Parts: sequence; structure tokens; C-alpha cells
Amino acid sequence: MTMSRYQAAITQLQARFDRQLSTNLTVRQQHAHTTTWLNNQPADAVLTAKNKYDVADAVKICAEHQMPVVAFGIGSSLEGQLNAPQGGLCIDMSQMDQVLEVSAEDLTATVQAGVTREALNHYLRDTGLFFPLDPGANATIGGMVATRASGTNAVRYGTMKDVVLSLEVVMPDGQIIKTGSRAKKSSAGYDLTRLIVGSEGTLGIVTEVTVKLFGQPEVVGSGLCHFPSIDLACQATIATIQMCLPIARIELLDPVQIRACNQYSQLNLAEQATLFVEFHGTQQSVAEQTALFAEIIADFGGADFSWHSDEAARKKLWTARHHAYFAACALRPGAKGLSTDACVPISRLADCVTATQDDIIASGMLAPIVGHVGDGNFHVLLLVDTNNPDEIKKAEEIIGRLAHRAIEMGGTCTGEHGVGQGKRKYMAAEHGEALKVMRAIKQAIDPNNIMNPDKIWPDEL
Amino acid sequence: MTMSRYQAAITQLQARFDRQLSTNLTVRQQHAHTTTWLNNQPADAVLTAKNKYDVADAVKICAEHQMPVVAFGIGSSLEGQLNAPQGGLCIDMSQMDQVLEVSAEDLTATVQAGVTREALNHYLRDTGLFFPLDPGANATIGGMVATRASGTNAVRYGTMKDVVLSLEVVMPDGQIIKTGSRAKKSSAGYDLTRLIVGSEGTLGIVTEVTVKLFGQPEVVGSGLCHFPSIDLACQATIATIQMCLPIARIELLDPVQIRACNQYSQLNLAEQATLFVEFHGTQQSVAEQTALFAEIIADFGGADFSWHSDEAARKKLWTARHHAYFAACALRPGAKGLSTDACVPISRLADCVTATQDDIIASGMLAPIVGHVGDGNFHVLLLVDTNNPDEIKKAEEIIGRLAHRAIEMGGTCTGEHGVGQGKRKYMAAEHGEALKVMRAIKQAIDPNNIMNPDKIWPDEL
Repeated sequence: MTMSRYQAAITQLQARFDRQLSTNLTVRQQHAHTTTWLNNQPADAVLTAKNKYDVADAVKICAEHQMPVVAFGIGSSLEGQLNAPQGGLCIDMSQMDQVLEVSAEDLTATVQAGVTREALNHYLRDTGLFFPLDPGANATIGGMVATRASGTNAVRYGTMKDVVLSLEVVMPDGQIIKTGSRAKKSSAGYDLTRLIVGSEGTLGIVTEVTVKLFGQPEVVGSGLCHFPSIDLACQATIATIQMCLPIARIELLDPVQIRACNQYSQLNLAEQATLFVEFHGTQQSVAEQTALFAEIIADFGGADFSWHSDEAARKKLWTARHHAYFAACALRPGAKGLSTDACVPISRLADCVTATQDDIIASGMLAPIVGHVGDGNFHVLLLVDTNNPDEIKKAEEIIGRLAHRAIEMGGTCTGEHGVGQGKRKYMAAEHGEALKVMRAIKQAIDPNNIMNPDKIWPDEL
Repeated sequence: MTMSRYQAAITQLQARFDRQLSTNLTVRQQHAHTTTWLNNQPADAVLTAKNKYDVADAVKICAEHQMPVVAFGIGSSLEGQLNAPQGGLCIDMSQMDQVLEVSAEDLTATVQAGVTREALNHYLRDTGLFFPLDPGANATIGGMVATRASGTNAVRYGTMKDVVLSLEVVMPDGQIIKTGSRAKKSSAGYDLTRLIVGSEGTLGIVTEVTVKLFGQPEVVGSGLCHFPSIDLACQATIATIQMCLPIARIELLDPVQIRACNQYSQLNLAEQATLFVEFHGTQQSVAEQTALFAEIIADFGGADFSWHSDEAARKKLWTARHHAYFAACALRPGAKGLSTDACVPISRLADCVTATQDDIIASGMLAPIVGHVGDGNFHVLLLVDTNNPDEIKKAEEIIGRLAHRAIEMGGTCTGEHGVGQGKRKYMAAEHGEALKVMRAIKQAIDPNNIMNPDKIWPDEL
């Protein structure tokens, strides 16, 4: 490798960590994986952390040398959060994968940051409890904290801001803090837990997470229904939420996405706007919810609604939904699937989705729309030939118009993916003067700007 | 009045605000109402704000003169949050009482900070929607933001951290910011909303609040049941929560409190540990929930469970619960009722309540216990002769031991009342090194420490 400007720090890190530290270019590039068209910008070295003291010691050495620090979970972030444009140290948290404590009485689990959501649920499989949040990828819990992740069942169980009780965090000076207790609520001072949730590694590195767990529902009923238009599917979603139906999942797939799923998952669904739904509860309550849902959608032209509570049928449905990304990519071999997201007040959902669909068509792009529409949140999967600068430009323009459209409708440029590098340019439009307050906090906590620099902020601090 | 050290600022405020500003001693003392044995420490002047620009202009003048600013809602805070130990300006928000927007489609309301929770629900009465949170007093929504308030139905609907979508805040330099959008979720930057919620006026003054609303349940079923001991009542509560029963309220009253309620509200309840409960849902779902609850409590000696869905019977029950404070005070005429609170992981609730009850008895004090036990949160109502320094000392010692007991059990020294002046001394024990991070944020946002100084922090910044 070429000499790093952080060579003194790296020498010190090597002395402390020996083979846990790698400066191999391939390893460094793997850890700067972006999932977008953003350039891969690797760190100067990658540390595989084994415990919180490794993280704290590494951050202290970095602090001394003002060397940037980027935390890495499994590399599934979508907005270039893991890139190291100034170089620095990447701390790979994936081996901090221990479930430290499960309290069935308190419905809580404390895990190291590198535990993935699927590993946690595997660990919980015999307890009658589960951790509901499911972003598409099998992300680490620490990574999900960083981006304030959510997923298909956030409509019922909330996002990471709602299910995290407390965090252990290594701060930019290497100090280890606890941000809260295991009490369900507290009024004792500032809510550091929720300040760290969504801060994308710019304020500290999360080493432990205490999350709420939920009882596995007695019955899970899943189904789908078709609509004559996206607008009507959105209207039916709005009505469902307004009726306060405690629906567990309500996912929109547009006709393009249904075509992709049919091809990829060997389904035979009508190529129409479709809602995939799920209901959790007792036998009686699921029956009641599905009956009410059937009544609601009838008013909006919803057709072919059927639901199942047997696991095989449900699994087929949700596997198809979870493979939506790969299915979409298969629509255009050779293209890269770039997922962007936005979130609006649900009253504006139909408007926002329809205008976005029109924009995609007008731009001549292929881009299925899927969404966690119960939260007013949806994704556009742009299928882009990343070797074609014109296409990248068109895709960026669609994303930009979507971001501003969502903001103008009283929403946000990202509901769950985070800002990273990709959405920095929309932060001023979204936050106005409040951005200065965010910056003041960043500067107070990380005065040398070593924690994941060049993320979130639209320009340099 | 005597000459204030902030005379120059007051002169400037008088020029700007004329009769909206008062320096009358009685007015100033009313606005420093503490509800505790803490001394009344009035501000130098009280401004009645009419709109956000009044607040912004006043804060700008105060910033220029480094004059402290304390916001006042209706004066129901319980830990001396409204005292002005360094003098300064009190801004009375109670005339900023307009409901600005209700979106039935999005289930949101935007209100000025001085709207009370009862006024909001009165405004909503014909919409089929309601705002659930109910701290004992008819607090303002702004005040509830400040203390991260909750109440009896937080177990179902969450606390202010969960139901606030977005805030408008006047920052310490007089700048007005918006902390979020009306989208249900966002990953666009730091969560300033939840940083301000619970900050007790130390980071800025909340002028507008956007909250989530909920559909009025089709059926509300309320009831009560008795237990042989507090321990068994707590065990039954734990089991109810673990079963993930979506109970809307589950309130513990100890035998002393039941005696008080019997006398005050002309009831004839068995003087035993009692749970007051409420269920929200459809006819069918409430029937199912109450049947399941009846099964659960039977395992813990729960007896006499009956429930009603007619409003008169329900109202009688909850009026008695809401009058618990006055009922307790009536047990000892002439004494002052001082309410303290703590919150623990629910698995430790029985231990914490029982140990606290033992402590009260050993201290020879009269102090009913009531609690939002579904959240692991409970209150001790100390009946204190505040002219007797020995009693005050005993009461303070009970509160101190309770705070440390809760912290040692993995809980918090306050679940919903906040820190104010009263609980500053427990902050170091609860937060350790994290307190430094909170202070760094405070210093970054309010470098001259003008926003509600001498609150939250255990010593001077």
C-alpha cells in the first residue's frame, strides 16, 4: 500500500491490535461497499473489534491523531454511509456478535452491536418473543441504530427510535457511556439514546444495544389484494390507518414490481397495484381485523383479497416481498438496482407516489415502486446502467425531485435509509435553521470531526 | 420592587411588550409555584406571550443581557422546574392556546404550546379522535413536552417522546426552528424533536407542538380487582404485560390510598392492594381482553374483578383515581402532599414497591403509593408537615433512598416528573459519564446558560 497520512496512528494501532488490523486493499474496499454509484472510498486500515475495549482503545488512538473513524456492520447501508472519503480507520463490528442478556420478564434483550436481526431472532426462537424490525438486509442491530432503520412492520411495532431502550456508546474521546436504563420510561435528563439513534456514526460508535422485544402473535394472517390504480391502493391504505386497524404490515408493490416478482419468484399475480398485508393477534382478533380490512378495501376497488395463517403460504408471500430488490434487478440484467426512499404524511401518499411514477415514466427509466405505505414511506428501485453517465444523471434527478417533492408535502427526504453521502444535499431544504443546531451538537461532541466525517452535513463543518 | 440586576433588560422588555410584562411580586411568585417544599424563587418579571414572535423577541433581549428565561405553562410541574433561583424572565405561555391544525387524515394535531391536554380533547370531541396522554394535572402540551410527561395510559399509547412528531422551538439566540416534519418517520439527521422533549426548558422554549392523535376506541371497558398483597398485584401486572395484552391502563393503588379514596370519593372498596384497569377496542376485542385478564389475575389471588363499559360507572372509577392526590391529602389535613416518582424494569417492580412501602412504614410516615405499574412506574405521595424540618428531612431521605433503589434496580429516579431542582442530586448516580455528554450539548446550544438555569444539572455548568 502507499504511505497513509495516518501512518503514525496505524503503527500505534498495529502495535495494539496486531492481526486484528488489516491494511489490505481488498479488505479495505470491501468495507467501503456503497450499494450506490458513489465511488468506493476505502479507509486506510480495517480493525476487527472483539469487544468494547478494542473500540474504545482504537478511538482513543484515532482521536490522538485526528484520524477519521467509520464503523462497519455488514455493509448493507444504502447512502454511502461506510465510505471513508478522508481515509481513516474502519472498525468492523461484525464479530461483536454476542446476545448478552434476554429478559423474558421485561421483554428486553441486550446485544453487542454486531448481532444481526436474524441472529437475534434465531436466538429468541424458543422464548415466545421476537424482535420485529426488518429492513430488507440482514443488518446488524448496531447498523440499524445508526440509520434509525425500520422496515415492513414498523407500522405496528415502530422504528429503531421506538424499540431501542438504551445504548452503550464509545464517544469520540474513547469514553464509554450508557445512554439510559432498562426502565420503560424516564424523565431524567436529555434523551441521549434517541440522539444517537439515527446519527449514522457521526457522534460515537454503538457497542451495545438494549431493545424491546415483543410476544410472538398467536396467529399471523397474511394476504394480498389488487387495486385498479396506485392511487386507489394508497387511498385504501390511508383509510386502513385512519380506522386505527392495528395492521402489522401493509406493503405496496406497483405493477412493474409485481411483474418482476412474478418472473423472479414464479408467482402468477395480476400485474396491478397490489397490497401485501399482515395481521397479528389472537385467532379472534385476526379474523376481526381481516374482515374489517376486506370491508375497507372494497370501497377503493380492492379485489381478490385472500389471507392465510399457515406458515408455508405466508412464507411464499413474504419471501417474494423480501426478494423484491433482486426481482427488480432481474428485470434489467446488467443494471444496478439503486434504492431510494422518501416518507410523507399519509394524506399525501397517493399524490407523492403518483407524481413520482409519472416522473419515472417521463424520464424513460425503469424503476419499480415498493413501499411501507402504512407509514407513508416508499422506495423507488432505479435500475441504472452505472456505466452510462446520462442514466446516472437522470436517476439522480429523479431522486432529487422526489426528495424535494416529499419535503414540500410536509415529509422527509429519507424515511429509513439515512443521509450518508447521498442525501446531504437535501438537508438544508428539509431542516432550514435546525441544521445549525445539529451542527452545534456535532461540534460539541466531536470537535475534531473524526467520527464518520463527510456524512449528513451538506458541506464541511 | 427592588432594583433587579437585569434592570436594563427589563426596561427593554417593557418598551417592547408594555402591559404584557408584569413585575408585580404576587404575579411573579404565582409563576414560581413549586408544589414542593422547595422555596419559591420568583423571576424578576413575567411576560405573557401572545405568539412565537413575542417569545423570540423576548429571548433575544434576554440573550443580549444574559438574563435567565423560564417558560411557564400552568404551573403543575412537581420538581421546582419553574423556579428562577437566579431571577430572570418568566414567559407565561398559557395564552398561546390555539389549536392550529387538526388533520383527521394523518391523525395529527398542531397546537400552540399553551393548549392544555383537556382543551385539545375538547376541541377534538366531534372528530372521533383523541389525545391520550394524561398526567394528573391539566398540563399544557408544551409543559408536557418539557418534562417528557406520560400518565395512566402511556402503557398503551406511549409517552410524550412517542406521540410528539415535531416541534417549533425558540432557541437561546432567539432563532425559531422546526425539529421535524409531519411524516411518521424520518432518518434525515439528528432527532432534535426527542432532544427537546424532556429537556425541561434548558435548551429552548417550545412554541408549537405537532402530536399524533388516536381513534377513539369503539368500546372502553374499565374495572378493578383486589389482591392479597402489593407484591401479588405487581406480579399480576408483570404477567399481563408479558402476555402482551394491549391493556390501556393498569393502575396500582395501595391499601392506604384505597382508604383515602373511599373517604374522599364515597366509595366502599376493600382496603387492599387494588388494580384499576381499562381496555380499549371493539366489543369483541374488549371482551377477549377482559376474559384473558381475569384468567391472569386468578393466578395471583386477584379477586372481585368486574368491568363496565357504560360511561357513568367508568367515570366514577377514574374520577376516584384522578382524585387520588386530593384524597391522599385529605388523610392528613394541614399536611402537604408531595408526589415523587420512580420507574424500574417491570421485573423489579414488586421488589421496588415493597421495599419502598417497608421504608415508609419504618420511617413512620404516611405516604400512599399509586402507580402506572404497567410501565414499572409508581408514585409515593408523602404527606408532610412542611413546617416540621424533621419531617421534611425524613421525606427527603425516603425520596433519596427510592431514587437510588430504582437506579440500582436498573431503573430511573424519575419516570415522568422530570429532574427540575428536586432530583439534580441523583443525576450523577443515574448517568455517570453520560452526564458530561448532556452538559456538552447544553453548553453548545446555550453557551451563556440562560435557559432555565440550575435545573437538571447537579452543579453549575
